[in-house]
Amino acid sequence: MISAEIEYLIGLLAKLPGLGPRSARRAVLHLIKRRAELAEPLAKAMGDAIRNIKTCTQCGNLDAQDPCALCADEKRDKTLICVVEDVADLWALERAASYNGTYHILGGTLSALDGIGPEDLNIPDLIGRVTDGNVKEVILATSATVDGQTTAHYLSDRLAGTDAKVTELAHGVPVGGELDYLDDGTLSAALKDRRPV
Amino acid sequence: MISAEIEYLIGLLAKLPGLGPRSARRAVLHLIKRRAELAEPLAKAMGDAIRNIKTCTQCGNLDAQDPCALCADEKRDKTLICVVEDVADLWALERAASYNGTYHILGGTLSALDGIGPEDLNIPDLIGRVTDGNVKEVILATSATVDGQTTAHYLSDRLAGTDAKVTELAHGVPVGGELDYLDDGTLSAALKDRRPV
Repeated sequence: MISAEIEYLIGLLAKLPGLGPRSARRAVLHLIKRRAELAEPLAKAMGDAIRNIKTCTQCGNLDAQDPCALCADEKRDKTLICVVEDVADLWALERAASYNGTYHILGGTLSALDGIGPEDLNIPDLIGRVTDGNVKEVILATSATVDGQTTAHYLSDRLAGTDAKVTELAHGVPVGGELDYLDDGTLSAALKDRRPV
Repeated sequence: MISAEIEYLIGLLAKLPGLGPRSARRAVLHLIKRRAELAEPLAKAMGDAIRNIKTCTQCGNLDAQDPCALCADEKRDKTLICVVEDVADLWALERAASYNGTYHILGGTLSALDGIGPEDLNIPDLIGRVTDGNVKEVILATSATVDGQTTAHYLSDRLAGTDAKVTELAHGVPVGGELDYLDDGTLSAALKDRRPV
């Protein structure tokens, strides 16, 4: 007989990706034991995020401001758009800290199986941005999965009529990766795109 | 450049057991995308829990009421106390649904290494409960670890002068467990405590 309030909180936490019922129970005990240092700031931060975080109407990024800090940043190269599937991909590229252009978040990939067509994604906005502005290059950084590559292919077709150059990320050996553990597709791609030292 | 508000929320979520920085990022995206169904109820439930959940002054359980629902339940056998380390252990025993007595939560184990002595745990209260009331049996259900067993040993010494019978959980083969994968200690204990079929 666990308190209904605690059960309810466990049930909600267990819906987070990466937490199951068991780890949600541990998390709830951890939270209740650390009210002042953790539970209170977390409840407040979550409330603040719900109220303040919005989707950028230009690129689809999540931020407290619209346009987002990246779109509003004057130091960012507005002639460059990197197209990604999800905000998590934008975060990953920002952590790599080697890109200074803007982004465009599709919100997923085309998928015949799941019935997701171009109008379900943020694609019309992207075409609009490329057609309207003076965009010089669109980098297609969708995943190297079947759906991701289908989406990239579709986008390069749609963007073929514009002035923008369309590029994709390089395939190859991951930095720090061992050849022996690489899959054949990556190894073939790395060999095909070999370059002079 | 991730929004400071999102970064802060990720940092707090990453402090939960079972979530690292990467899974906290995924969890935050999941939360922001599911505001109405998940983030809002979760923030509210967490706030409610912070305000309402208290520690039972009798047994140390966490509940919205004090004494907790278990201590207040008239159908529970008050002559039986099961001593556990943590609220999570109480929850595990309640899930097993084969115990109808009351509990006493120590809040940890004795530990010479970590400098945790009897006065740091909920032990004086336990001795008080056993001495004052008409308790017939105290079940020591601390972990089968060195610290847990040291604590059980200490408690059985302290309770030796009282009228209560002191018992411990049986050791043996876990239900559904294969002999081949069992450690030697458990196997020896199971063999020693063998019983007629």
